This record gives sequence, structure tokens and C-alpha cells, in this order.
Amino acid sequence: MSEGLKIGIAGLGTVGVGVIRLLAERAPLLVERCGRRLDVAAVSARDRRRDRGVDIGGMQWFDDPRAMAADADVDAVVELIGGADGVALDVCRAAIAGGRPVVTANKAMIAHHGASLAESAEAGGVTLGYEAAVAGGIPIVKALREGLAGNRIERVYGILNGTCNYILSAMSENASSFGDVLAEAQRLGYAEADPSVDIDGVDAAHKIAILASLAFGTAPDIDAVYTEGISRITPWDIAYAAELGFRIKLLGVANLTDHGLEQRVHPCLVPESAPIAQVEGVFNAVVTEGDFVDRTMFGGRGAGGGPTASAVVADLVDIARGNMLPTFGVPAADLRRIEAASMKRHRGAYYIRLLVVDQPGVMADVTAALRDARVSVKALIQHSHDLGDGAQVVLTTHQTGEASMLQALQEIAALDTVLEAPRMIRIEQL
Amino acid sequence: MSEGLKIGIAGLGTVGVGVIRLLAERAPLLVERCGRRLDVAAVSARDRRRDRGVDIGGMQWFDDPRAMAADADVDAVVELIGGADGVALDVCRAAIAGGRPVVTANKAMIAHHGASLAESAEAGGVTLGYEAAVAGGIPIVKALREGLAGNRIERVYGILNGTCNYILSAMSENASSFGDVLAEAQRLGYAEADPSVDIDGVDAAHKIAILASLAFGTAPDIDAVYTEGISRITPWDIAYAAELGFRIKLLGVANLTDHGLEQRVHPCLVPESAPIAQVEGVFNAVVTEGDFVDRTMFGGRGAGGGPTASAVVADLVDIARGNMLPTFGVPAADLRRIEAASMKRHRGAYYIRLLVVDQPGVMADVTAALRDARVSVKALIQHSHDLGDGAQVVLTTHQTGEASMLQALQEIAALDTVLEAPRMIRIEQL
Repeated sequence: MSEGLKIGIAGLGTVGVGVIRLLAERAPLLVERCGRRLDVAAVSARDRRRDRGVDIGGMQWFDDPRAMAADADVDAVVELIGGADGVALDVCRAAIAGGRPVVTANKAMIAHHGASLAESAEAGGVTLGYEAAVAGGIPIVKALREGLAGNRIERVYGILNGTCNYILSAMSENASSFGDVLAEAQRLGYAEADPSVDIDGVDAAHKIAILASLAFGTAPDIDAVYTEGISRITPWDIAYAAELGFRIKLLGVANLTDHGLEQRVHPCLVPESAPIAQVEGVFNAVVTEGDFVDRTMFGGRGAGGGPTASAVVADLVDIARGNMLPTFGVPAADLRRIEAASMKRHRGAYYIRLLVVDQPGVMADVTAALRDARVSVKALIQHSHDLGDGAQVVLTTHQTGEASMLQALQEIAALDTVLEAPRMIRIEQL
Repeated sequence: MSEGLKIGIAGLGTVGVGVIRLLAERAPLLVERCGRRLDVAAVSARDRRRDRGVDIGGMQWFDDPRAMAADADVDAVVELIGGADGVALDVCRAAIAGGRPVVTANKAMIAHHGASLAESAEAGGVTLGYEAAVAGGIPIVKALREGLAGNRIERVYGILNGTCNYILSAMSENASSFGDVLAEAQRLGYAEADPSVDIDGVDAAHKIAILASLAFGTAPDIDAVYTEGISRITPWDIAYAAELGFRIKLLGVANLTDHGLEQRVHPCLVPESAPIAQVEGVFNAVVTEGDFVDRTMFGGRGAGGGPTASAVVADLVDIARGNMLPTFGVPAADLRRIEAASMKRHRGAYYIRLLVVDQPGVMADVTAALRDARVSVKALIQHSHDLGDGAQVVLTTHQTGEASMLQALQEIAALDTVLEAPRMIRIEQL
């Protein structure tokens, strides 16, 4: 048997502890699968004495994770500190500079600095593994980089944030408001005390930037991701969507258009018959559309100590087996620059909800505004609800340009008979 | 750039032609992803002159694929002839003996001879790739061997045969008989003229034997797979299952029990809320249950030239990139022998449909037989249908042993008031 792989772990939160547990509990299995042991030789975290439920007594302790990455007697470094910059980035750079492969679950760092990290890792002949950064335990990085490598990918999209999917699922199930469900999710530990990174779509944006890089051979470009969260979704929208045969999901989508690469995170109406519409609660799912393989879907737990540890260990197993792969599917030096397509040039169908004065002639004004912008109406719902003076009107459009849609909405918003800002949600053709 | 990888293809049916097309059409992409060209240098098939819509003029032609595998100036051999033994096996053995990696889509051969082929391939230091043998384009072999390598797998199951799933979906949609839908499937090209390999569960058995090997580190053992097809499923069963909240699917299942490894292919009632219940038509899906990652699901097209070619090329990309992996996740020499659990010791819940004489006392006899075998009834349906003298009774049981169930069914079948052999379908807890 070859010598063991000595691992240093920076950050001992849920995932770090999960990795230690997995490597200990599955040690015989991993020896069989890798032909060598995977041993945690060094760790670094904030507080040495905290009881984490795992024995770190035999491991070398570092107060400073940067020192561990640079100096510890380890063959690979696992970065689980988090944050796009700062210590996490220092740790990865130090490890790579010392010729050590790096495994990370840090989506923010890979989305912001993936290309430069990949370049130095590949120049140094070491792996930069980040399977855990996207969709938790689902091996989607490996699928795109290897399993589907023969395909030109046309679109990749997914439910990439379990907190948002939990909130939307619960709003749908209980007809509850966003605020109520968020508070419940926080109580249950599915949402953070400061939930903005999740509910504003930032976390999903990091992940779609990484998936886009893998799918299209371009450097991750987080600044190119149009990002819109779920906090303005109401139970009305969910109910109207259902009436029209749709579910509302927060999707990350990356697709090539005539104007370049679209990368976007926003709430979407998806047909309730689409497989991804069935993904409920904290689960994640990623769909890839390749020219030879057609549509493939990957689903599972997108977060949590166990699933994320599973993904971290998959990267360690690749390293232990001696497999080297180009970080984003092609060598970092060959990553292409693809023009970012502006959302103004996005084409799609739209769902619009309006609160209007309940009087004759209003619909004529609204539909005239749509006609002037050359937006064609596909379906229209008007129910009488007890909303005081107002009536709700919901419509969906045929495929149109986003610029036209925004122009029509601006005109509609300006009508005296329209009582609040129109709500617009994009419909994703699946 | 490194030298190109020269490939020989044995068998030019839909998949072989798909591989040639993919390698030609995606050549620049593959060079980017592998750092070298993937070129088809030699081919062998039955008829040289047949028009296949691809240009094979520049490739060396072999009438005998064995000669190609042994002698052609190629770096890797793709076997797409099919059949568990005979020429296909000769081709793979010759290629491996000559130090050439092999890629195959041949599930029958891997299920029957996978262990011995893996041993010679690993002894010779060459890859035996078979991603295309299970679930078409879905990269499930890679997922189990690499992406989920940190997990102890507890169960793996899936919809592994698109023909059966198409037939069951269509029977459900149109309330049609098995025979009618099969004829329609044959007309549409979804079922073969001789459909037995598909509808009798043999094809799915090959695939679950391979998945079991990967999941549990054991040699593929096709003889240990209990196999039952779908030809006895009726529209009645599908309708009653729906009434009880289930769908009927042909599943391949491999799971560890106290009595050893269960490997089985049979129709199952699955809860309609289970993700796999939503998989319709010719699509395949595989679910893995790992101890750290929990449940992950992989779905996509399980057959067809494009998806299967995608999987073949994924293996070729691994070879071109220089990645060597243990064939079944652990070295062939370390594959364990796990006792096969007999179906008599299977435990589960059951669905039973009876045609009984419509007269008082019948239900007392039936339930007495169940009580005597210690089988506990969970739900019972009796509708009045126009069935002449008979009445249909459907019941589901709580968890019980298969031996008890069979004993009860034997007693029930012997009752004078029971008019035809009882129908039993297993319920799979998901």
C-alpha cells in the first residue's frame, strides 16, 4: 500500500467536523477505494478547546490556518473557513505556493478568484478541488468536467439554494407569507440570522457562476451574474402561478444566446410538469442540457455537514488516487472570455401581477400599453378578491424581449388606475 | 499538445455512428478538454459498404473486430458489438492482452464477465470503461466510483430500462393493456421485435448487477439477481395502485440486508410522492442512498445513439487525460464476495389483487389465511365492477416476510372462492 495522504483542515465548523468523522468512520472503505489511508494530520480553527464531538488530540494544531497551509507536514489542505477573500484565500494561495493540492467548499472564493487560483494550481501541478462548493453532496462538478465532457452544453440551471427552496415550498404548502416562513426557517436552522446571502440570491449566484465556468469553459465571472432574490414573492404569486400550471422556484441559469452568455439568478415560473418543479424543501437539483446527452438531472442535499463532507472527500479521493483534472474542465490558461449578455436583451415569457382600480376601461389601458410595446398576452386571470377598491389582474405573455416588457411595465405603472408597482416574474421555458 | 489518442471502434450501429459523429463534431472542444485529439483510426463492422451517414473512408477497415483489437495501430478499443460472450468478449480480451484500454456499452458482458475482465485490465495497467453500460448518458458509474466514494452505500435503485418505463407510463396514461402498449412501442421503435430482454427484466438485471458491484465493492453476479418482468401488470393494477397513492415502476434494486446482498428486478409500487415515481416514458433514473450524502438522484436518457455516445466519450476522455481508476471502485483483486440474500428472506410490504366469488364469507377465508401466515393487512379495496360472477379485492400489507406472504397466497389460491391466481406486487419503501 502507498503511503497515506496527510490532510490539513482549516476550519472546524459543521463541515470540517463532518470531514473528520467521515475519514475516521470510513477509513477501511477509503483504503480499499484509494489504495492508501486518508489521515487528518493537522487542523486549525478559532478555538482549540471547543468540544466538537470528534477527537483532534492526535492532530497538529495551528492557531493560524495560513501557517498550517504553508508549514504543516501535510500533502493536501482543506479550506473550510469561508468568505471570498481574507484568510480563506490566503490559506489556498499558501497551500498552492507550497505545492499542496487544495480542496474547498468555498463558493464565494471560487466564484471571485477561481480563475487565478486555478492558474496557480495548474502551474504548480496541484489540484484545486471544489466539488463541495456547488450543490453540496451532488457530484455535479465531476459530472460537468468529466461525465458529460463529450457534450457542448447549451444550458445549465438549477435549484442551488436550499434555504430559498425551503421557503418557497413552505409558502406554497401553507399559503404563508415570505416573512412568516422565513422566521420559521430561521427557528428551524434552515436560514441564517442574517439571511440576505441566501434570500437575495447571492449564494446561488456564486454557484451558477461556477457551473457556467465548467459548462462553457469560461472563467467564473460573478460580476456578470444578474441576481434577484425571493423576498418580493407573495402567496398571491404562488397561487396564481399554480392556477396557470406553474411552480415558482429560485433558479440559477446559465445559457448561451446570440448576444453572449446569460448568467442569472431570479425567481422563475417553471411548468409544474418539469422534473425540477418537483424538487421541494431543502433539496437542490441541477439540470444540464447537452447536445448529445440531452437533458440530465442531478438531485440531492445541497448543504449540511454530511453531504458537504461527502463532496470534500470525493475530491480528496481523486487526489489520493493521483487523478489530476483541469480545474474548470479546460486548462485555466485556455478559459475563454465570453461576452456577458445583458438582461435587457433577455428573451422569454413573463408573468405580470397588477393591482388595479376595479372600474371599466382599466383593462383597455393595460392591454394598450402591452400592444404599444409589442408584447403579446398569452393568458389573463381576473378574480374578484376582497381587496377593497382594487382588483388583481394577472397575465402571462408570449416570448418577448425584456426591454419591451420593461417598457410596457413602465407605461402600466404610470396609469392612474394601477395602484401599486406591477410585479414581474420571468417564466423559464424548460 | 500531446499526441492524439487513436481509437478503434468495433460495431457501427447507432451508438458506434454516434461516437464517430460526436468525436468529429466536437473535436475542437475535446482537444481543449483533453489536451489532445481523439481520432477514430480503425473500425470494424459487418458490412463495409453500408451507408451510415458518416465518413469512414480515412479509417482502417477490419472485417474481423478481433483482428482490429489485436493488431490495429490504435491506443484504445471501443466495443459496441453486444452480447455477453462471443465476439464482443474476444475483442475486449484481445485489446486488453495487447495493452490497450477498452471502452464498452455492453451491459451483458460486464454483468457476466466484468470481474475477470477487470482483473486482466488492471493487471495490464489499462482502463476498462463501461459508463455507457448503465443508464445511457447518465454518468452514474463515475458518480458511484468517484463522486460518492466517501460513502458507504446502503441501497441503490433505479428505473434502468426505458422500454419498460415507457410501457408502464403509457399503460397508466391511457388505461391500455400491456399487449396493446407493447405493440405500439414496437411500432414507434421503443421496443424490439423480440422484446423479451427488456420486458422480462433481463436488461435491467444486467444493470443492477453492475451498480451493485460499484456500490458494494463486490464482483458483478448476474446469477444472484432475482428477475421478474412487467408482462403480467394489468391496467387494473395500475388503477388500484393509483387509488392507493402509488405508481407501478420496474425497478432494479440492490441493498444490504442481515442475510446478505439483495439484488432484484421486479415491478414495484412506489409512493407517488417519491421523486422516482415522477420519471416517465423512456427516461432512466438512479437513486443512491449513502450514509453521509443521504439520497442523491441522477436522471436522463437511458438509451439512444447520442446519450450512449456521450457516455462512451466520457470514458475516452478519462483515458485521454490519463486518469486510471479501479474498474468497480476498488481494485478487482479486492472485490468482496457478499452472500446473496434469497428472496424468500426479503422483507417488505405487498400489494395483492384477487378475483373472488361475490358471496358472503369469502373475505373471512382470505383474511384468515393472511392471519395464519401472520401477515397484517394495511388497506383493503373492494369495488363492484362488472366482472360477471367475480369481484375484485385488492389489499396491501404491512411489512412482512416474503416467505409468509407466499404461504398466505398459496392458501388463498387454494380457496374454492378464489377464481384466478392471486397477483402479488412488491411495495418498495422509498
